[in-house]
Amino acid sequence: MKGFASDNYAGVHPEVLTAIAEANDGHAVSYGEDPWTARAEELFRAHFGDAARSWLVFNGTGANVLAYRALCRPWQAVICSDTAHVHVDEAGAPERVAGTKLLTVATPDGKLTPELVDTQLQRVGDEHAPQPGLVSVTQSTELGTRYSVDELRALADHAHAHGLLLHIDGSRLSNAAAGLDVPLRAISTDIGADALSFGGTKNGLLGAEAVVMLHDGVGDGMAYLRKQTLQLASKQRFVAAQMIALLEGDLWRSSAAHANAMATRLADAMRGIPGVELTQRVEANAVFALVPPGVADELRRDFRFYTWDEATGEVRWMCSFDTTEDEVDAFAGAVERACGAAVGA
Amino acid sequence: MKGFASDNYAGVHPEVLTAIAEANDGHAVSYGEDPWTARAEELFRAHFGDAARSWLVFNGTGANVLAYRALCRPWQAVICSDTAHVHVDEAGAPERVAGTKLLTVATPDGKLTPELVDTQLQRVGDEHAPQPGLVSVTQSTELGTRYSVDELRALADHAHAHGLLLHIDGSRLSNAAAGLDVPLRAISTDIGADALSFGGTKNGLLGAEAVVMLHDGVGDGMAYLRKQTLQLASKQRFVAAQMIALLEGDLWRSSAAHANAMATRLADAMRGIPGVELTQRVEANAVFALVPPGVADELRRDFRFYTWDEATGEVRWMCSFDTTEDEVDAFAGAVERACGAAVGA
Amino acid sequence: MKGFASDNYAGVHPEVLTAIAEANDGHAVSYGEDPWTARAEELFRAHFGDAARSWLVFNGTGANVLAYRALCRPWQAVICSDTAHVHVDEAGAPERVAGTKLLTVATPDGKLTPELVDTQLQRVGDEHAPQPGLVSVTQSTELGTRYSVDELRALADHAHAHGLLLHIDGSRLSNAAAGLDVPLRAISTDIGADALSFGGTKNGLLGAEAVVMLHDGVGDGMAYLRKQTLQLASKQRFVAAQMIALLEGDLWRSSAAHANAMATRLADAMRGIPGVELTQRVEANAVFALVPPGVADELRRDFRFYTWDEATGEVRWMCSFDTTEDEVDAFAGAVERACGAAVGA
Amino acid sequence: MKGFASDNYAGVHPEVLTAIAEANDGHAVSYGEDPWTARAEELFRAHFGDAARSWLVFNGTGANVLAYRALCRPWQAVICSDTAHVHVDEAGAPERVAGTKLLTVATPDGKLTPELVDTQLQRVGDEHAPQPGLVSVTQSTELGTRYSVDELRALADHAHAHGLLLHIDGSRLSNAAAGLDVPLRAISTDIGADALSFGGTKNGLLGAEAVVMLHDGVGDGMAYLRKQTLQLASKQRFVAAQMIALLEGDLWRSSAAHANAMATRLADAMRGIPGVELTQRVEANAVFALVPPGVADELRRDFRFYTWDEATGEVRWMCSFDTTEDEVDAFAGAVERACGAAVGA
Repeated sequence: MKGFASDNYAGVHPEVLTAIAEANDGHAVSYGEDPWTARAEELFRAHFGDAARSWLVFNGTGANVLAYRALCRPWQAVICSDTAHVHVDEAGAPERVAGTKLLTVATPDGKLTPELVDTQLQRVGDEHAPQPGLVSVTQSTELGTRYSVDELRALADHAHAHGLLLHIDGSRLSNAAAGLDVPLRAISTDIGADALSFGGTKNGLLGAEAVVMLHDGVGDGMAYLRKQTLQLASKQRFVAAQMIALLEGDLWRSSAAHANAMATRLADAMRGIPGVELTQRVEANAVFALVPPGVADELRRDFRFYTWDEATGEVRWMCSFDTTEDEVDAFAGAVERACGAAVGA
Repeated sequence: MKGFASDNYAGVHPEVLTAIAEANDGHAVSYGEDPWTARAEELFRAHFGDAARSWLVFNGTGANVLAYRALCRPWQAVICSDTAHVHVDEAGAPERVAGTKLLTVATPDGKLTPELVDTQLQRVGDEHAPQPGLVSVTQSTELGTRYSVDELRALADHAHAHGLLLHIDGSRLSNAAAGLDVPLRAISTDIGADALSFGGTKNGLLGAEAVVMLHDGVGDGMAYLRKQTLQLASKQRFVAAQMIALLEGDLWRSSAAHANAMATRLADAMRGIPGVELTQRVEANAVFALVPPGVADELRRDFRFYTWDEATGEVRWMCSFDTTEDEVDAFAGAVERACGAAVGA
Repeated sequence: MKGFASDNYAGVHPEVLTAIAEANDGHAVSYGEDPWTARAEELFRAHFGDAARSWLVFNGTGANVLAYRALCRPWQAVICSDTAHVHVDEAGAPERVAGTKLLTVATPDGKLTPELVDTQLQRVGDEHAPQPGLVSVTQSTELGTRYSVDELRALADHAHAHGLLLHIDGSRLSNAAAGLDVPLRAISTDIGADALSFGGTKNGLLGAEAVVMLHDGVGDGMAYLRKQTLQLASKQRFVAAQMIALLEGDLWRSSAAHANAMATRLADAMRGIPGVELTQRVEANAVFALVPPGVADELRRDFRFYTWDEATGEVRWMCSFDTTEDEVDAFAGAVERACGAAVGA
Repeated sequence: MKGFASDNYAGVHPEVLTAIAEANDGHAVSYGEDPWTARAEELFRAHFGDAARSWLVFNGTGANVLAYRALCRPWQAVICSDTAHVHVDEAGAPERVAGTKLLTVATPDGKLTPELVDTQLQRVGDEHAPQPGLVSVTQSTELGTRYSVDELRALADHAHAHGLLLHIDGSRLSNAAAGLDVPLRAISTDIGADALSFGGTKNGLLGAEAVVMLHDGVGDGMAYLRKQTLQLASKQRFVAAQMIALLEGDLWRSSAAHANAMATRLADAMRGIPGVELTQRVEANAVFALVPPGVADELRRDFRFYTWDEATGEVRWMCSFDTTEDEVDAFAGAVERACGAAVGA
């Protein structure tokens, strides 16, 4: 079963499981008035700055939809990449639950730029046209790439110059920060982002994410919105305990860095295999590739992974906090053999 | 901290925590294609009948809103008690997220009757009036009372006779079944209910509920609706493992029966205390009471609990799976002392 | 066909029809950038104060839902009477389209008071409870009563003291102003209301209403919200022309005052008829009454009107701008005869 | 003021105004229980087949959003062209009010094809992906082109083969039918479409559109949905009277055919002018063109029209039922002069 399908296939990091068990200590006030939540909020401030306010939620779609509800006025739309998770993998929840139209932009690498944002600003002020209120970027992206600090800052500045806010879907923010070797705040608070969906589940938690408002000017009514958006846990201490385990020490970075390193190791191995073409830069924990016809099917006898693009056959190989070097090497060997057979055939 | 505030203040039953830890066994397919989810679904069929289909979700509000989205046509409203959790404690989520208007009925004890339902059927077919499509009852109720099997069957029959469906908010269904000493299906499937929000969290789980469609005629599109309603867990095996721990053996019943017994013990003790008036029948794990002025404040020095009605001062004392006889007795003693002082003063 | 069923059964006042025809003068810019719209906006400022900004819409439900979308934050609910049109006669549109929960209050006469509003303010700040953001009153009410200037001011002050806004559903505001013999602004802008749904259709227009924001602090994004809420007319000059006809001279008042006078005449006649009991004060253009058994059916052979309350048999008789004294007298005579027969029987 | 900006700039056809005035005959039951509405419904059946059921509404956005609410299940999305009015000119109403995500497809000419639809069917059955339930095409299109009967039939067949419904945004259906010289049903009912937004306003009405369900299998709850979607007129006889004027005789066709003919005349004139490039086929009442730099500004001194694409400078010239040959010739002459000056410069 272990393979390269998704960082969601991995289980829970042992330290996280221990933290959950330790939080099971008698009664605690429900719905977040507990010491674990207070500590988690403190850690979010430590990572994202004193003004950061955090709200724990269940999952990434919940985080994004809640953030959109908080950041967009009732008539506003969201500018995002057409490969964004919110557009292609959230079952229409942003539109159905938040009511926000997504103004999507094609990108070569999953990354918006100020110029690409501009394509959606042509009709600002025209009451017939959906009015953008928010730019939402994913860091690291759904294509395994990442924004540099300067690229993010340029987007934040551009958004603000046009009266828009900047939201980061950071379901893999840790992978980006680890890859860039910077603190989490360097690619969120410090570049001027307004709000963040911070991911934990893909980085070894059982199930815990957060919406973080990065400055005082945003986030009105968040407590009410979280409850109303179905994201308030009754026994929230167990969500908070996970986040504490991730953020209190180095776990967020070590787990993400390891997953990144495994993806890099896999990509490096692929570069030497005739017939394999890497289709995106490997800057986080994913490898995207084209392989010769038949190779994907051959590999699937032993390894699980997803085809990303049915039209081209492009595949995605994902590493997680618990991927081992041996597993990478075994898989790379299998790719090499399968390609050799395919090319030789 | 331990007191009588809420069954949500309790932690996780040790067997449930063990089940979570045991599910942390390598990789598993995410989003529910895992053996734990398959087993949980099997157990729901065992409890609720072969036609029962279940969808695990995060919390009770999520379950109710998802159920309403699945059971109501886009123009339909829901008939419920004006003390229903969906009306008073879900922050307007049914209206905001599901878009369903609630047609509320005042009740003496939190329980709808066919006659009370009829008060909301006066304008069926009138395009100006909200059109009811669903009756939603809570079993056991928010007031600690419960429907008998016959009362539920009468409601289901009445709903169906008028073209409505019947939904049960069963966040404490186990308490009702334990109190009635019947199987879960006796107060759901067998009385003709169409769908169910089945609660686990208040009965010793970390955080796991389910929407159960009880026959084939309901539940179109549930997989899409669950995802869109922000209730699909990526590492769903850990949600399923909790539900397995609850439903595989006797845990659901033993935990609920214990909580019920503690409430009965507390109520019995209260009956002998001058100045204390029980305001609802004690049929599940809650005790509602009026106490002399000043008594609630005095008790709050040592015990946490909620005032239910600010106007009358009515209080709610809630027992959970881990409430002990000693705790009940200590609290009863404190009530007796405080009432004695209040009455003597 | 002419009867006492509804002021919506009446047609279009001849002056209004003329205004529509005169507006049919060649091409005009669509969607409101036309001179008629500019003139209508000017007239709204003349009636409601220099800060008043108006948006023409199609119908009353559209006006109310648009107003709620503009005045409530995404998590907020609306406090209103349980006889309010938005609650009982708008098919659940406020909940479905605006997403706003209605927190309803029973009233004897359709009128909220500060004390009745307070019943919905018990859980402000509690994230589980729907959070009120707006008080919405109807002037004149659905029961034919009206608020005095002082009663409205007390409500506005009370709302503002609790951080709420005040909206007036003024689908019959003209009837109230005519009845009180005050300018329109005396019962809207001057008492401190924040926004208004201003009705024209029930007062002799073909189909034209407006949302009016009464001061600068409210109404962000109204142009976008109106379009998005399906209320922007392409050939808006024809909507504006109607409103000009109503507001430019005295037509709004003379039509409403006439309808009121006819209701008063009818009520006066009823007071002398044994068996007829007026159930509400007659302060606008409606008469509510109880009549002996069988009388309503007898009257319906010749006159159309509605039963208001199926349980009690209470009927509603509505007058309009074109109701004549002869029609009132003929109807009163018929009531007298039918009651005589019923009492005699 | 008269120019080539929009068919919405035109006023009301005299016959329509007369029909409105004639409908102003005493009292009539409101909300559609009137003889005019009955007659309009009869005419819709005459044009679209005996199974056709029609609901009059206020405007085109209202018609489309209402149709989507009726045709899509709560989890479904709509496939449309990325130049569709619902996507670019309805302010996000489909997403906000109907909750439906739009799955957009780039097209050269505003027209979907089965192959283009297929691009949005790759993830049917995947709970993470928005699930299409409806294909929505515009006839004639926003780019002045039109589908042939065969093209529409192929789309209907393709949609049905994949379990999808077909909706036609027919705000200019009359222009398409007139252009093809076929009855309205030939490009709606007879090709197998399921439902239709039928436009009247752009074809000489004051303000009247309709949603038409073309067979019995669709349109559950339409009366409730129309009211809830804010599209039920109280004095509906005046909406119906307009539609009767349009559909009873030949007015729908003669007005549309005239507008089409004027566009053809204009296009023919343009073909002889150096520097003018027609960018779309002229198959209805619109002409799209590229003109030399500076020409558009020069023309705007005397004529109003819209730039369609700010990036390329492409302009749109629209004809209406009341455009005259002289106006076309005068405009064509102005274009010729301006182009001559521009090219000569």
